[in-house]
Amino acid sequence: MRRIRLFLSPGDVADGILQGHLLVAIDVLRASTTICRALSSGAREILPVADVGEAKRLAERLGRENSLLCGERDGMVIPGFDLGNSPLEFIPNRVRGKTLVMCTTNGTALLSRLREAEVYVAGFVNTGAVIRRLGSLKGDVAVFCAGLHGEFSLEDAVCGGIIVAGLESRLVKKEKVLLSDGALAGKALFQRWGKKLKELFKVAHHARYLASLGFERDLAFAARMNSLPVVPVYREGRITKGE
Amino acid sequence: MRRIRLFLSPGDVADGILQGHLLVAIDVLRASTTICRALSSGAREILPVADVGEAKRLAERLGRENSLLCGERDGMVIPGFDLGNSPLEFIPNRVRGKTLVMCTTNGTALLSRLREAEVYVAGFVNTGAVIRRLGSLKGDVAVFCAGLHGEFSLEDAVCGGIIVAGLESRLVKKEKVLLSDGALAGKALFQRWGKKLKELFKVAHHARYLASLGFERDLAFAARMNSLPVVPVYREGRITKGE
Repeated sequence: MRRIRLFLSPGDVADGILQGHLLVAIDVLRASTTICRALSSGAREILPVADVGEAKRLAERLGRENSLLCGERDGMVIPGFDLGNSPLEFIPNRVRGKTLVMCTTNGTALLSRLREAEVYVAGFVNTGAVIRRLGSLKGDVAVFCAGLHGEFSLEDAVCGGIIVAGLESRLVKKEKVLLSDGALAGKALFQRWGKKLKELFKVAHHARYLASLGFERDLAFAARMNSLPVVPVYREGRITKGE
Repeated sequence: MRRIRLFLSPGDVADGILQGHLLVAIDVLRASTTICRALSSGAREILPVADVGEAKRLAERLGRENSLLCGERDGMVIPGFDLGNSPLEFIPNRVRGKTLVMCTTNGTALLSRLREAEVYVAGFVNTGAVIRRLGSLKGDVAVFCAGLHGEFSLEDAVCGGIIVAGLESRLVKKEKVLLSDGALAGKALFQRWGKKLKELFKVAHHARYLASLGFERDLAFAARMNSLPVVPVYREGRITKGE
């Protein structure tokens, strides 16, 4: 039997239940999407860092010719950084072969709480690849939504629901699947919005905020379902393509 | 304009946003349902208490002829208590005119975190009455789900969604309504399960647990939509019918 749990809100992360689970972290707008884009564009690795000062010191230590400082605060690029958090910036010419030191508000905070484990990073752009990876491995699954400033974020929950529903339909012929209450809710949210991402981004708070800053193209990019079939793996402080 | 927020998980309670909001607390299984039943059966007031020892001392102080000790731990009645947490026990002959000292796992914990404010208590049995009350008053609305042992609980979220959807459709002709991401999610959960509470209780974790303990009749009671049109008000440590 396989348990699939979905933690809808960032406050839901419970330490005790992680042992032996396959873990997924979701921050659709925009860390997950940007990480998928960066790795697809040939970045060597991404080092998520919670603090701006720490990011600067780390980039100095790595050598500025090999590294890029990336990140945002409240959606805007951080002064002195090379790149913000828009997936559109992470083109091959900028990031190929580089180590990216990345400082984002919600996604990085989530990963730093899951530091002890191996975590897959998911957004709408790579749900299919993540589902295939989870389906090919054994073990219970726990999916975490990064949310926004500690609160529930609708697009992360819908993305979590897509993973729950996709994995369940993949597994259900072979084994018994048990969904947590959060996973059941996520599946209902997938049924409501999973094929209406444009409509979703018209109502979800964070998407509206990004649109108000002029990031409409980022939203369109983040909504391109399965456009980047990569599975970023966070392990020992680094995100890579895995193998 | 009216904001309606729904906090889906118990970890979501943010202190800063409560000022000036109309507050609702939901613990469908079973504190909310039992509180509605007790007040409908003529109980004078309910004093929610987090700790078993504190409950016993308080009942002694009130005088055992005027008070009843009620509550559960892990769904079972607490040794030495007069009543458990099954709404079926709270009949007029037992509770009329009494002060109930009530010790429950999740609902009481939520109320004690909202102690500074006035809070309405809601379950499926009284959503209509709560919606009417909220609609008759001014102010933004924040609805909190008690959850289960700190985690998201599906039936509380569905109940929250019923309140969101009902209040929105009541207000929308008169004023602009803005739903938080949690409220949007709750509305989708209402659309999925709001009229299928039996099906909901077949899949939701806490309902399955209570059924496994033999409390199927409590589930049927909790699912009787609008059967107890009362609005319990929690204020300064007491729950009463309000006015």
